[in-house]
Amino acid sequence: MNGLATSTARHGNPPLRVALLGCGTVGGAVLRLMDEQGDDLAARIGRRVEVVGVAVRRPDHHPDVPAHLLTTDAQALVVRDDVDLVVEVIGGIEPARSLLMAAFEAGKSVVSANKALLAEDGVALHAAAAKSGVDLYYEAAVAGAIPLLRPLRESLAGDQLRRVVGIVNGTTNYILSRMAETGAGFAEALAEATELGYAEADPTADVDGFDAAAKAAILASLAFHSPVTASDVYREGISAVTAIDVARAAEIGCTVKLLAICERVGDGDGASIAVRVHPAMIPTSHPLAAVGGAFNAVFVEAEAAGQLMFYGQGAGGEPTASAVLGDLVAVSRNRLAGAAGPGTTSYAGLPVRPMAEAPTRYHVSLDVADKPGVLATVAQEFARHGVSISTVRQDGRGDAATLVIVTHSAPDAALSATVTSLREMDIVRAVTSVLRVEGLA
Amino acid sequence: MNGLATSTARHGNPPLRVALLGCGTVGGAVLRLMDEQGDDLAARIGRRVEVVGVAVRRPDHHPDVPAHLLTTDAQALVVRDDVDLVVEVIGGIEPARSLLMAAFEAGKSVVSANKALLAEDGVALHAAAAKSGVDLYYEAAVAGAIPLLRPLRESLAGDQLRRVVGIVNGTTNYILSRMAETGAGFAEALAEATELGYAEADPTADVDGFDAAAKAAILASLAFHSPVTASDVYREGISAVTAIDVARAAEIGCTVKLLAICERVGDGDGASIAVRVHPAMIPTSHPLAAVGGAFNAVFVEAEAAGQLMFYGQGAGGEPTASAVLGDLVAVSRNRLAGAAGPGTTSYAGLPVRPMAEAPTRYHVSLDVADKPGVLATVAQEFARHGVSISTVRQDGRGDAATLVIVTHSAPDAALSATVTSLREMDIVRAVTSVLRVEGLA
Repeated sequence: MNGLATSTARHGNPPLRVALLGCGTVGGAVLRLMDEQGDDLAARIGRRVEVVGVAVRRPDHHPDVPAHLLTTDAQALVVRDDVDLVVEVIGGIEPARSLLMAAFEAGKSVVSANKALLAEDGVALHAAAAKSGVDLYYEAAVAGAIPLLRPLRESLAGDQLRRVVGIVNGTTNYILSRMAETGAGFAEALAEATELGYAEADPTADVDGFDAAAKAAILASLAFHSPVTASDVYREGISAVTAIDVARAAEIGCTVKLLAICERVGDGDGASIAVRVHPAMIPTSHPLAAVGGAFNAVFVEAEAAGQLMFYGQGAGGEPTASAVLGDLVAVSRNRLAGAAGPGTTSYAGLPVRPMAEAPTRYHVSLDVADKPGVLATVAQEFARHGVSISTVRQDGRGDAATLVIVTHSAPDAALSATVTSLREMDIVRAVTSVLRVEGLA
Repeated sequence: MNGLATSTARHGNPPLRVALLGCGTVGGAVLRLMDEQGDDLAARIGRRVEVVGVAVRRPDHHPDVPAHLLTTDAQALVVRDDVDLVVEVIGGIEPARSLLMAAFEAGKSVVSANKALLAEDGVALHAAAAKSGVDLYYEAAVAGAIPLLRPLRESLAGDQLRRVVGIVNGTTNYILSRMAETGAGFAEALAEATELGYAEADPTADVDGFDAAAKAAILASLAFHSPVTASDVYREGISAVTAIDVARAAEIGCTVKLLAICERVGDGDGASIAVRVHPAMIPTSHPLAAVGGAFNAVFVEAEAAGQLMFYGQGAGGEPTASAVLGDLVAVSRNRLAGAAGPGTTSYAGLPVRPMAEAPTRYHVSLDVADKPGVLATVAQEFARHGVSISTVRQDGRGDAATLVIVTHSAPDAALSATVTSLREMDIVRAVTSVLRVEGLA
């Protein structure tokens, strides 16, 4: 390896020069790995890669970074003549968007880990990169270290995707896993996650599903070659999931997961995309059910390839840096080959179907009076909304009974309206658990 | 989509022209999918892709293929001026090798599904492709539809791989799954697999591990940037796996799988590669343990990314065709961009360590006489070979006892020699089960 590095130097090829924007957990790991693996990266790329500037807000907070590399002027850094490639790990919309646009304008390829930005403005960013003939890669933006976007963009480019269903947020998966293991409620499990560092002090982005929704938008865009933004994604978080929901799930052989679901609905000219994030019961036999703790996994169904699953660590400095460096190798190779890699097309232009019209299935648990005709009345209410019932279980206890109903697929609005009607019925004492169901045969 | 295809035609860009070599199950699926998805492929590539010739042995066996496309002269087809890309799904070493070499020489990029050829001659093929500045892609050669080689070649190009452990042969996985489910022996499960079409009439390539060994060689080459051929791979099939082995595995919380294992052993100048295929007990909690039936999965451990798993269908016409078409889109895009994609480097040049020196762990079950000192004598025999014992379970029954021993890691030769010695000891009535163990903490 040293032999090759030396020989590269001997031939006098200048290194590829990188501007790093942001130097937190991920940026720090990127710097460390680039340093440790410099010879290997050089051998794999065919050229050394060198960081020539690191933009941070507070230079005095980064004693490990050589002082001459640090700058607070990110805008000046990205357009510097001696910068070939830009790595953006700042996150958030601004100033990241302006910096990326300036980088493209100046002919630099970009590696980004910024899910929020890509989910909000992916189309414009891709267009700007394409206009300048440079690359925009962002494997680290979804599911951390798991190679997922490249497989969707490239490996499955000859196939038709039907569905992408993922556990893409480790914090909520940890909380739901603990609720299932211990019987704890949401608040208790969240407190534990916060104490152990699996949840942020302000857990809103994770717990309310914003993080997963941004990732769902990116996945849907790539899977269906159509523009999908975070605001197109229907979103429910996990704060309303109760210990009863988790127990009910176990009773029907299921487990509760926060899922990001991207589906193609309909065919031909009537085709559209349904994209949503919400907690759901999935059968314990489903490959996603076994994905515990802070791990991520994404399940893909394609016409020809069939069922695929990708599993690994979805967050953390080193795993995320692994994805960033994989992209850095790719954009470096493209740079040396004098050609940009495959861009992202939104040629299909499929519309996003409103959640009300998305086909879903519900699990509903009810406490009812145990008297003749109750089941018939309840079943009639489902039928009145055009909802077909898949399974019913009735358990009597004294003068009351529990009804556990799983529906067939129906428009979400019809299912939601059915639940509203049930709550208003006299014979229904309480609706004790309502959750969507995914992955049942 | 039609709009785009028409507009491409209007601009007068000629299509990319493909020669298909072989038209069996996979080739037929490639043709069908290219036809069905022509507009989508054109939109994703930026140019239409058209099959201009199909080389087969018996043209009269292919009534579905337009007669003017069929030829028996594959050698003439691959060098035709009106061919841009070659798709090889013949399999086997010759004539595939000569055809690929001729294609590279003539400046054609190649997509291949040929694991045997890549495992035997990958280095020479890559060199020939690189010399002509064209592509050699072969995602379909390992684990069918599962995007695996591109993630190893590209997504993880910025990381250091430690291990790649895969279930890469569906036939043997089906047989072992059935043995675990039904308690059947190998012969009975094989007969069932043959009847259901999961095993070939001559199952040697699968059952004796040749298929998995070719895949292991390809995986090890890519993972460790070093030349590894099928003949470097230590290989044991599953025909010696008994119902007792499977039952013993269950007793210690394990399941038996045929694994392809590629490991980096040692560091720095002393680093080497251990690569092998053999049945092994793995804990039922391991992500690979749940991979049942004819599915494939590959588990990857990398320094920064941590643990990853890729899961899906490893064989079959449509899944394999999906991988071929993904590669076809990639080499087409590269062709239009005027640059070859990333090649495969063997810059690290790590040597392959002989199996005798590879670190493994053994499970050994013994029937012994139940009298004082037996355990001490047996334990002494392990120690004499430098093998450390991890766990022992002794069950007495009358004057006999069963000893179940799991060792710590030791050179495979030392473990193997220990078993040989045990078989010769008077107090050992029978060695009832010996299998390697993987994935235990």
